[in-house]
Amino acid sequence: MRNFDYCNPTRIIFGKGETDRVGKECQKLGKKVLFIYGGGSIKQNGLYDRIMKHLQEEKLVVYELGGVKPNPRIDKVREGVAICKKEKIDLVLAVGGGSVLDTGKIVAAGAIYPGDPWDFFIDEHKIPGKIPLVTVLTLAATGSEMNHNAVITNEETLEKLGTHNPHLYPTLSILDPENTYTVPRDQTVNGIVDMMAHVFEQYFHPFPETPLQDRWAEGLMKTIIEYTPRVLQNPTDYDGRAVIMWCGTMALNHLLEEAGGGGEWTCHPIEHVLSAVYDIPHGAGLAIIFPQWMKYVLDVIPHKFTQFAERVWEIPRANKSDQELGLAGIERTREWFREIGAPTTLREAGIGEEKLTEMARMAVKSGNLGVTKVLDEKDVEEILRMSL
Amino acid sequence: MRNFDYCNPTRIIFGKGETDRVGKECQKLGKKVLFIYGGGSIKQNGLYDRIMKHLQEEKLVVYELGGVKPNPRIDKVREGVAICKKEKIDLVLAVGGGSVLDTGKIVAAGAIYPGDPWDFFIDEHKIPGKIPLVTVLTLAATGSEMNHNAVITNEETLEKLGTHNPHLYPTLSILDPENTYTVPRDQTVNGIVDMMAHVFEQYFHPFPETPLQDRWAEGLMKTIIEYTPRVLQNPTDYDGRAVIMWCGTMALNHLLEEAGGGGEWTCHPIEHVLSAVYDIPHGAGLAIIFPQWMKYVLDVIPHKFTQFAERVWEIPRANKSDQELGLAGIERTREWFREIGAPTTLREAGIGEEKLTEMARMAVKSGNLGVTKVLDEKDVEEILRMSL
Repeated sequence: MRNFDYCNPTRIIFGKGETDRVGKECQKLGKKVLFIYGGGSIKQNGLYDRIMKHLQEEKLVVYELGGVKPNPRIDKVREGVAICKKEKIDLVLAVGGGSVLDTGKIVAAGAIYPGDPWDFFIDEHKIPGKIPLVTVLTLAATGSEMNHNAVITNEETLEKLGTHNPHLYPTLSILDPENTYTVPRDQTVNGIVDMMAHVFEQYFHPFPETPLQDRWAEGLMKTIIEYTPRVLQNPTDYDGRAVIMWCGTMALNHLLEEAGGGGEWTCHPIEHVLSAVYDIPHGAGLAIIFPQWMKYVLDVIPHKFTQFAERVWEIPRANKSDQELGLAGIERTREWFREIGAPTTLREAGIGEEKLTEMARMAVKSGNLGVTKVLDEKDVEEILRMSL
Repeated sequence: MRNFDYCNPTRIIFGKGETDRVGKECQKLGKKVLFIYGGGSIKQNGLYDRIMKHLQEEKLVVYELGGVKPNPRIDKVREGVAICKKEKIDLVLAVGGGSVLDTGKIVAAGAIYPGDPWDFFIDEHKIPGKIPLVTVLTLAATGSEMNHNAVITNEETLEKLGTHNPHLYPTLSILDPENTYTVPRDQTVNGIVDMMAHVFEQYFHPFPETPLQDRWAEGLMKTIIEYTPRVLQNPTDYDGRAVIMWCGTMALNHLLEEAGGGGEWTCHPIEHVLSAVYDIPHGAGLAIIFPQWMKYVLDVIPHKFTQFAERVWEIPRANKSDQELGLAGIERTREWFREIGAPTTLREAGIGEEKLTEMARMAVKSGNLGVTKVLDEKDVEEILRMSL
């Protein structure tokens, strides 16, 4: 086991009906709230009105920043920061999925930073702290509700970059599974692919002696696989939504990563280029790239792939070689992505070979990727080509 | 899944050599330290000198409270509180196992409480907060390093009582596996039984739809079972000690419990009476009682016991009934306790039937125990009698 330093101070309030605590909890943290949300689905499903009612009951002064898009933009962040500074906002309330939460994190940090918040993506040490951040999650996917990461797109430079800093842990996240009942099927699937990919990034590493982290990662994968059909068949299956929501949170709250192999994090940056250039959903990009990356590194950590095949997919070893057993697990993963309705080739997502070279160059712009097998521009291009 | 409210703010610094950071980390939290430790083993193995050197390098003013015993006493806590109040101590540094850490927690809270710290065990709401608490763990067992529990014995009343409150989470815990190299075999075993018992208390519950919590509990159990022989065969197996240490922390940091069934917590209070009356090690008492409790409640949650037998012990179902398969898992558990050198009957621990009735009465003094099957005085006496 490697040494690590771990502290996750986010408070989680989880469960049915807990959305109604948002007013009282925000009121403990300040008077002036910046309420951030996305494209308006919370106005259609009643969540906006429900939250507004609670904020008003507590006599909070509410400013609004709506219209945050998937693959959220730095321009929208800047708009939020300007409101915070002008109106002396006390706390940020972000209601939505990962895009809204990530926007909320950077706005809350930008509120006390004199420069431009894009600086945080060039150098994470510039993140100075933040004003309190409360989130109400409406999409199980990114784990943003209990982690210190944020990913923002800069449309001018066509960059989609991530940053991380302990200050970015939300103060409080309210996880009410009923708020995910109205998530459409394709977004539910993308969210599930995203959380599964988070586990992959932290599971397939070359470090020895991480038995508990391996078993917990496998527990997450098996639970996600078991409960996915339930939420796809019945979007208002409470326990199905609850289990998937909690899996999404646990899949990326740094517990597996800090105490484990530290994370591979190759497919995520490759996918970030894909969705920055083609604006496809993050989950779709991951489902396409991951199985190809797996094949590409299989021979470096064959024991990990055989363990994955046997423990997660329960594929019997029989007379298979390590290579064959590992490949069978990877194929089963791809098949599962297909079964739940995720794309598994670039062409299915409408992407041809035109920009593969350019995207590979962009993916390694800040340096080569990965730990298990260090990927340079050529490797990334090869993985993208395999993904066609 | 049940609703829950979870926040664990303890910072963990884990790994080889991390003990050397104790001076700098304490210095960030104050000037005057109360250094609490146990029976002197840290003086023999050099840890005391090493820590003192770091504290002095940072020019901290150090007061000492040594001699904390297993099943720690309220008198020792009172002594520590008196030093804190008289000397205006800024922070508590507890170096040892669960007994020392629990003493540290109650001293740190008692330091800012005007009354007697035994009050905290009558009513946990009286815990007002605490001065900062840093711990350096030397025994993998109780999970006290990352939880909000403390157990203290009152010798006058022969009570061993637990309390819990969010204020009792340590500020920082340094987990350096090398500090457990010198733990004797019997204490290593007791610690392992304790962590296994913590998982049992949180796993065998009647609540449905806790698939991730179940798999994480099973992951803990399988990892503990896999790594126990390594630390018993070679006490200085670094990764063995590291994995067992991390399992002990994860076995009781409220993550499984809050998001899971909430915990059964029957065998722990029964054992607390045993060790308050007979002063036997906590782990020994748990190894004796737990398999009998399991048999006593088997018919209430047979599905949980069959899952346990199949997933943890990999016992094939073959033609077994639920009852037979469940019993096989329980028997295997008892056998495992025997294999690693824990007692499995009261008589082995030198306890006869003289005080069974009295102990049963003491165990339910504050009310009946448990959730799966509510245990009254007669039930507890029966379980104790089965344990003879």
